[in-house]
Amino acid sequence: MSKFFSAKYKNLTPYVPGEQPKEREYVKLNTNESPYPPSKKAVRLAEEEARKLLLYPDPDQKVLTSAVAESLGVKANQVIMTNGSDEVLNFAFMAYCDHTHPAVFADITYGFYKVFAEVNNLPYKIIPLNRDFTLSVDDYIKEEGTVFIANPNAPTGIPLPLSEIERLLVSNPERIVVIDEAYVDFGGDSAVKLVDKYQNLLVTQTFSKSRSMAGARLGMGIANEKIISDLNTLKYSLNPYNVNRMTSGAGLGAILDKEYFENNCKEIIATRENTANALKKLGFWMTESKANFLFIKHDKIGGQELYLKLKEKGVLVRHFDSERIKEFNRVTVGSPDQMRTFIKRIEEILEDNQ
Amino acid sequence: MSKFFSAKYKNLTPYVPGEQPKEREYVKLNTNESPYPPSKKAVRLAEEEARKLLLYPDPDQKVLTSAVAESLGVKANQVIMTNGSDEVLNFAFMAYCDHTHPAVFADITYGFYKVFAEVNNLPYKIIPLNRDFTLSVDDYIKEEGTVFIANPNAPTGIPLPLSEIERLLVSNPERIVVIDEAYVDFGGDSAVKLVDKYQNLLVTQTFSKSRSMAGARLGMGIANEKIISDLNTLKYSLNPYNVNRMTSGAGLGAILDKEYFENNCKEIIATRENTANALKKLGFWMTESKANFLFIKHDKIGGQELYLKLKEKGVLVRHFDSERIKEFNRVTVGSPDQMRTFIKRIEEILEDNQ
Repeated sequence: MSKFFSAKYKNLTPYVPGEQPKEREYVKLNTNESPYPPSKKAVRLAEEEARKLLLYPDPDQKVLTSAVAESLGVKANQVIMTNGSDEVLNFAFMAYCDHTHPAVFADITYGFYKVFAEVNNLPYKIIPLNRDFTLSVDDYIKEEGTVFIANPNAPTGIPLPLSEIERLLVSNPERIVVIDEAYVDFGGDSAVKLVDKYQNLLVTQTFSKSRSMAGARLGMGIANEKIISDLNTLKYSLNPYNVNRMTSGAGLGAILDKEYFENNCKEIIATRENTANALKKLGFWMTESKANFLFIKHDKIGGQELYLKLKEKGVLVRHFDSERIKEFNRVTVGSPDQMRTFIKRIEEILEDNQ
Repeated sequence: MSKFFSAKYKNLTPYVPGEQPKEREYVKLNTNESPYPPSKKAVRLAEEEARKLLLYPDPDQKVLTSAVAESLGVKANQVIMTNGSDEVLNFAFMAYCDHTHPAVFADITYGFYKVFAEVNNLPYKIIPLNRDFTLSVDDYIKEEGTVFIANPNAPTGIPLPLSEIERLLVSNPERIVVIDEAYVDFGGDSAVKLVDKYQNLLVTQTFSKSRSMAGARLGMGIANEKIISDLNTLKYSLNPYNVNRMTSGAGLGAILDKEYFENNCKEIIATRENTANALKKLGFWMTESKANFLFIKHDKIGGQELYLKLKEKGVLVRHFDSERIKEFNRVTVGSPDQMRTFIKRIEEILEDNQ
């Protein structure tokens, strides 16, 4: 830190992304990436755009926005495209939180919410999940602030029924509710269908997981047009060309290749269920995940220990230090082959442990 | 705007990017893009990365950062790569301005500085350029705040000598000076060579103009390692994966293809001088631009009128409404062919005007 760094950031603790080690080839199950390559259509359109890099992208992203809107069954002015869903989430913290509207979110959820609140100097309130990691909407109905809920939640994978989200939305129409649907395509129920009904709803999604585009950085916000207009005011005040040409092309290709997307989601769901069953047979406890990861623990081996032993054996999973979940690991659902290797390594570790 | 939008942004006026019309093919000289395609190496590496989009990019951008650092003659920890130079400029406003450190910049300069100050709720002071649009460093030496200077300046193209920048840097070592070098490769003198000497200097550059990558969104900050560490704290608190895989690949290719870059810069400089001479013969007054654009006016025709007449004839240039420069137009230096068309249209307009 330099002596010039503004005092307002002196206590800021940045987000820590999952490891991306380069010293060795791992079976990489730590950052919820897709095991499948991006759609061929996505690659082809990205390549076409690479030849046109001399020209700025369309700041309005008209073509991509229209295609996304059509695929979601909303109007183009109900969608904003961003540099990953992290960007639209940050816009939402900026737009809808301030000293009279604190951010409200769970203790166990996407770790970035707290960082977004802190980097923007916004007050926030953390609400503990229930003992079984489920979320009680009543805890949020009581609060005054702007609510951020990941659905399904991370790192637990537990979904919240839409009826509960509606109950939260109607309980206070003067308060914004942000539903972060990074993992919704793996069996969750999307709140996008509610954006015409509730003016206080903002849904965010990403191309990183279900569309195999973590490397492209493409996310989006879906809401009524006035909310989208607020977010565009921020986009045009920070980085109007936030989405580059190649990412935009890849996004369009991915949206047009609906069948590939749907098949990959189906495959990942099937692999998740098979992996969950195999782990349960080995004595693991887990949440009922509807995401592309499992959140697991075992009575016979600590969370940190399992993480380290797997890493030693060439398998990377994600371990969080925070007290309440330190006995768990979050395991991305990879390809059937990757998961067979993972299960084999787990068996070896449990055997050595006896 | 929604009723939910935080009161702190109620008076925010976003930046207005140059038009990107789609209804007709224009000779596009309005957004300072390069007339030359990106380097073939850049395209090839971007295409390679398009096939790997399933995996997140390296948040540290180690490979690209090292290559950029080497090409600039600095250490890798003196460089940060960002989603366009707009992102690093915003980080600089966040990191080095606050209620005791206002932002200080010229009245006629990159229009985004004012927006960055406003979106971050930062105080700022605007200092008028001299009558001939040159900048007097003494005006800034007197001030207390964090200084932002575009060098060469936009939309005038006028460069500030490095000796003047040094005078500003030494006048107050407790104050950060940001030198925005978006256009430095067209004949300016870069302050990058000063970053080891002055702890209070941050230089920003972009791949958008001289490396034909406006569509890729790649910028960077160069400074001593503590400044870079501050900026990384913000990056990791806002968008750790800010630079996507394809843009990173394209950037690496562009840096490796030094000859192509240098030739393009030479071509553009030559075309600028030829165009300037042709315009002077037609009675235009202009600043001495060292950028890839010319800033021109003519006694016989108003700025707005010339802009509109050129547009009617299929040539887009940039006109700014602000009082002090409303008789001017900023004209990007395109290919020799584009500039011949531009001059021909100008001749027609002046003839019709007589």
